[in-house]
Amino acid sequence: MKLKLLLLPPWAALVLACGVQAATPRAEPVQPIARPAITDPARVALGQKLWFEPRLSRSGFISCNACHNLSLGGTDNLKTSIGDHWQQGPINSPTVLNASLNFVQFWDGRARNLPEQAGGPIANPVEMAYTHALAVDTLQSIPDYVMEFRKVFSTEKLTMDQISLAIAAFEETLVTPNSRFDKWLNGDDYAIDAQELRGYRLFKSAGCVACHYGPNVGGASFQKMGIVAPYQTSNPSLGRAAITGNDIDRFSFKVPTLRNVALTYPYFHDGGAATLTQAVDVMGRLQLGRQFTDEENADIVAFLHTLTGEQPRIVLPILPPSTNATPKPRPFE
Amino acid sequence: MKLKLLLLPPWAALVLACGVQAATPRAEPVQPIARPAITDPARVALGQKLWFEPRLSRSGFISCNACHNLSLGGTDNLKTSIGDHWQQGPINSPTVLNASLNFVQFWDGRARNLPEQAGGPIANPVEMAYTHALAVDTLQSIPDYVMEFRKVFSTEKLTMDQISLAIAAFEETLVTPNSRFDKWLNGDDYAIDAQELRGYRLFKSAGCVACHYGPNVGGASFQKMGIVAPYQTSNPSLGRAAITGNDIDRFSFKVPTLRNVALTYPYFHDGGAATLTQAVDVMGRLQLGRQFTDEENADIVAFLHTLTGEQPRIVLPILPPSTNATPKPRPFE
Repeated sequence: MKLKLLLLPPWAALVLACGVQAATPRAEPVQPIARPAITDPARVALGQKLWFEPRLSRSGFISCNACHNLSLGGTDNLKTSIGDHWQQGPINSPTVLNASLNFVQFWDGRARNLPEQAGGPIANPVEMAYTHALAVDTLQSIPDYVMEFRKVFSTEKLTMDQISLAIAAFEETLVTPNSRFDKWLNGDDYAIDAQELRGYRLFKSAGCVACHYGPNVGGASFQKMGIVAPYQTSNPSLGRAAITGNDIDRFSFKVPTLRNVALTYPYFHDGGAATLTQAVDVMGRLQLGRQFTDEENADIVAFLHTLTGEQPRIVLPILPPSTNATPKPRPFE
Repeated sequence: MKLKLLLLPPWAALVLACGVQAATPRAEPVQPIARPAITDPARVALGQKLWFEPRLSRSGFISCNACHNLSLGGTDNLKTSIGDHWQQGPINSPTVLNASLNFVQFWDGRARNLPEQAGGPIANPVEMAYTHALAVDTLQSIPDYVMEFRKVFSTEKLTMDQISLAIAAFEETLVTPNSRFDKWLNGDDYAIDAQELRGYRLFKSAGCVACHYGPNVGGASFQKMGIVAPYQTSNPSLGRAAITGNDIDRFSFKVPTLRNVALTYPYFHDGGAATLTQAVDVMGRLQLGRQFTDEENADIVAFLHTLTGEQPRIVLPILPPSTNATPKPRPFE
């Protein structure tokens, strides 16, 4: 029995766990997601302000939302992002939507969770190009922020950890429930059509689901990009190997979520695939050793479109004005 | 009688007109503003999408909101803006809030109204750096936009004029009523305190109101920057002279609105004044030949803070995804 369990695919545990928790959802390797419960609305509201806060960048121009645009599926729809002084980012900006469901953060998994991730871009010289100390000084100089941090964290002295925790709390709300596929998973036979269902069945039988499983349809493991055949790219990213130093981890990346994938083009860590059709073709050949026919490809693409969920409804925050003590933005130095 | 009317200051007509329209507001050279009536909500909704649409820029990164950020009083709070490839803009981005109340648009008044203005930055090579033809092609390639333009303009073929009209319709809603000063104007004696009232009285008696009058507390005339003494700046903008070719119009700019001025720092066409204190000091000396004492300056600044109105409540639009036919963004070419 133990041996049998070990031989089950990695998503089997999720299916079994799910069977225990709820009777309704179909027993499938992809699981529906629910609207997150907000337990600390003040922290979320603060995080939402910080999400749109360009004063967390050296230039005063780049906020989290610049590259993870919540109008665009939580991405910038660019191959790689634009950073401070228009520097070209090294890697495709992954969507923030449902990022809380990923087992680690960043393509190479170098952050274990959202609070660990949130501070990264602020201090990255090719992204927001600020420093954590200046980010703290900036917010500390603005009385409305000090008041809000006091309310949320019960302190007078802001810290970078608090900034990251608040941003992460907001990010945790950026979940997209009620996709048509989730409705189907929850028992609505008419939520997806015959082609979409055919696409999902092929997605399972062809083996896509071996990596793209669970509530986030991915985001649960590292996998090598180019298993059957090497992936051709001019992008220098080493993937997981940059963290572990192990040659075996070269080109190993966190499997991206496929939720809202119709919105999060272009695809792959280098943004190398402009369309879902291209992405499915490359994945079939390089990861599964399978050349999908045009019809098969179209079926899978049709299925992938059913993964677009309800997008977060965000009221643009009004940010408190700077004071004479606020560090000045330096966009052209 | 005719002669007498001609001798009245320019805002007198407004006061007289206002007296006819409503009995309540105080007879003051500054007039309250009202929440705008939305007559075509579908057009406004389309314009709101276009306002946040980075695909109207060559890079796919810069939207109207990048430089007229509705989280920041409709400005970017930079001296001059960041454009395509991080080019430095030639002039301070004026606020979009209450722009519909300005008699002309742009600092030099080269657009007569908002629809005439809206297309400018899209095609300006140092701003969004796109072309009107490509902007039209981009939206025309996206079925959801085509459907929405059809609903609003009853046509199948998008035009740049329609894009501009939709953006302008959204901008017309970006009015900020119910500032504390407007409440005072409307009869609430307790809406502003003694210092703020003192500041307003000085604002009138010192002559600030000669240019900053009417519902927009400015935005109703061109005036020379540096009347009593020349304004020192490295900014090469000629102002109105660039349009008229007349030497007399050198350094003549549209008087900016003072509504929400506490949010729209830095000040002047070159962003040369970082704080309201500095701006009031420079205006006093250069435009009125008057050195305000610290106390007078503080009183006027206190009054200016009462001009912050209700900021527009904007739900971030979800933008329809590109199709294979959509022109690709070119951020790094």
